[in-house]
Amino acid sequence: MNTDTGKVTLLSAGPGELDLLTLKAVKALAAADVVLLDDLANPDIVTLAPQARVIRVGKRGGCRSTPQAFIERLMRRYALKGLHVVRVKGGDALLFGRAGEELAVLRDAGLAVEIVNGISSGFAAAAALGVSLTHRRHCHGVSFVTAHTEDHGEPDWAALAATRTTLAIYMGMRRIDGIAAALLAHLPADTPAAVVQWAGGIDERRLLTRLDRLAADALGAGFGSPAVILVGDAVGESAEAPCWERERRGEQGGKMLPALSVVRAA
Amino acid sequence: MNTDTGKVTLLSAGPGELDLLTLKAVKALAAADVVLLDDLANPDIVTLAPQARVIRVGKRGGCRSTPQAFIERLMRRYALKGLHVVRVKGGDALLFGRAGEELAVLRDAGLAVEIVNGISSGFAAAAALGVSLTHRRHCHGVSFVTAHTEDHGEPDWAALAATRTTLAIYMGMRRIDGIAAALLAHLPADTPAAVVQWAGGIDERRLLTRLDRLAADALGAGFGSPAVILVGDAVGESAEAPCWERERRGEQGGKMLPALSVVRAA
Repeated sequence: MNTDTGKVTLLSAGPGELDLLTLKAVKALAAADVVLLDDLANPDIVTLAPQARVIRVGKRGGCRSTPQAFIERLMRRYALKGLHVVRVKGGDALLFGRAGEELAVLRDAGLAVEIVNGISSGFAAAAALGVSLTHRRHCHGVSFVTAHTEDHGEPDWAALAATRTTLAIYMGMRRIDGIAAALLAHLPADTPAAVVQWAGGIDERRLLTRLDRLAADALGAGFGSPAVILVGDAVGESAEAPCWERERRGEQGGKMLPALSVVRAA
Repeated sequence: MNTDTGKVTLLSAGPGELDLLTLKAVKALAAADVVLLDDLANPDIVTLAPQARVIRVGKRGGCRSTPQAFIERLMRRYALKGLHVVRVKGGDALLFGRAGEELAVLRDAGLAVEIVNGISSGFAAAAALGVSLTHRRHCHGVSFVTAHTEDHGEPDWAALAATRTTLAIYMGMRRIDGIAAALLAHLPADTPAAVVQWAGGIDERRLLTRLDRLAADALGAGFGSPAVILVGDAVGESAEAPCWERERRGEQGGKMLPALSVVRAA
């Protein structure tokens, strides 16, 4: 046990495979006394903290789960005992996931906090599809939004569509029909759209389609959470884009894939 | 030299410190025959590819630099010789930086392409400030946009402001006065704003201010490229926020920092 002043590391576990952890994350895990493990993080991550006490604090949307206030108390209590607490969060800790509240609690307690960045699943989803999130032929940026209304309220889909940025929508699978309908009011029906479930993990699955078929195709193919929904012309640059999408952008001789393309990770 | 079929890895070097590379990136570098090095990547990264031939292909905005078509030819030529080419890009390869064009060229040549994600500087900037990009009290997402007009045209600042997402603006330092003015037409003058130069690197510097003072404060304090500009209420959650910002959000007894807060990395 460490008898110095404790500290808390907010550690980004990335999208799944341990290979996608940073060197800095691996070092922090090796030095941890206590690991608080989010249930969207790969559970094998605890092998990198063999000496640490591991506490699972899963908080999946809609399920019975560890209340946020309890997680915050745990972090504070162990760190005030002088321990190095590593709070493991899926993706990047600073994109969704309530890091803001946790940082405020820890600062109010006078505790040192270290933040270790990681790969957010929207980036892993783009890698899975083999596309840039911001192909300059199509857009000047990308917007990451959550459709988890309890946490953040309903995004302004009209405003988001008007930006012409690629949209990376997190926590949207339960409302994919409503999201697609809202976007269809502002974007062309044939706007390329994709779903990547478990992006960057060994169970990764991906689907490429168009906005007006997005909900039916994703639900029909059995896609569920956790998944990232990508919408925008940049997504249509994927080599896996269905033939009608490749024709739309003027390519000849592409692979004739079916309109609904579902691919499992190798 | 590898006599099998070659391949190309688009490798994300992250924002600067080698500690922020992923394990997957380190493995790819160790296996590289040829490394094509972007000049926004930390040059020390070549120590991780000791056996590779290193070619510097910097392409800084506005400077004399290696043309994109030449870089694409180099990648293709070496890979077609059977070599493992690692194309190192700063940040995440799939956010800005022309990965889309490179992927298309490599696929047309029938080459295998691997993408290794990394930490984009907007995430490192948020870590530097100690804020969530998407504090749920303030927003439902974050938009990453480039202000590099030659590459992507002018973003629709009105539409971006209307999304109420946090804005992470890349390549904007040369036009920071115009960007701030455009946003001021749609956002309150006291909207928190920050600049983080060399985010995630040893030369990191950060500035916290408000939108109507953003350009004057950043230029007055000598901030330049490469830097990320962050705009939005989530940014004001930083413990380093100036006293007037802490008063604005109703906190008492905060540190009385000057309105212009410039902090160098330790």
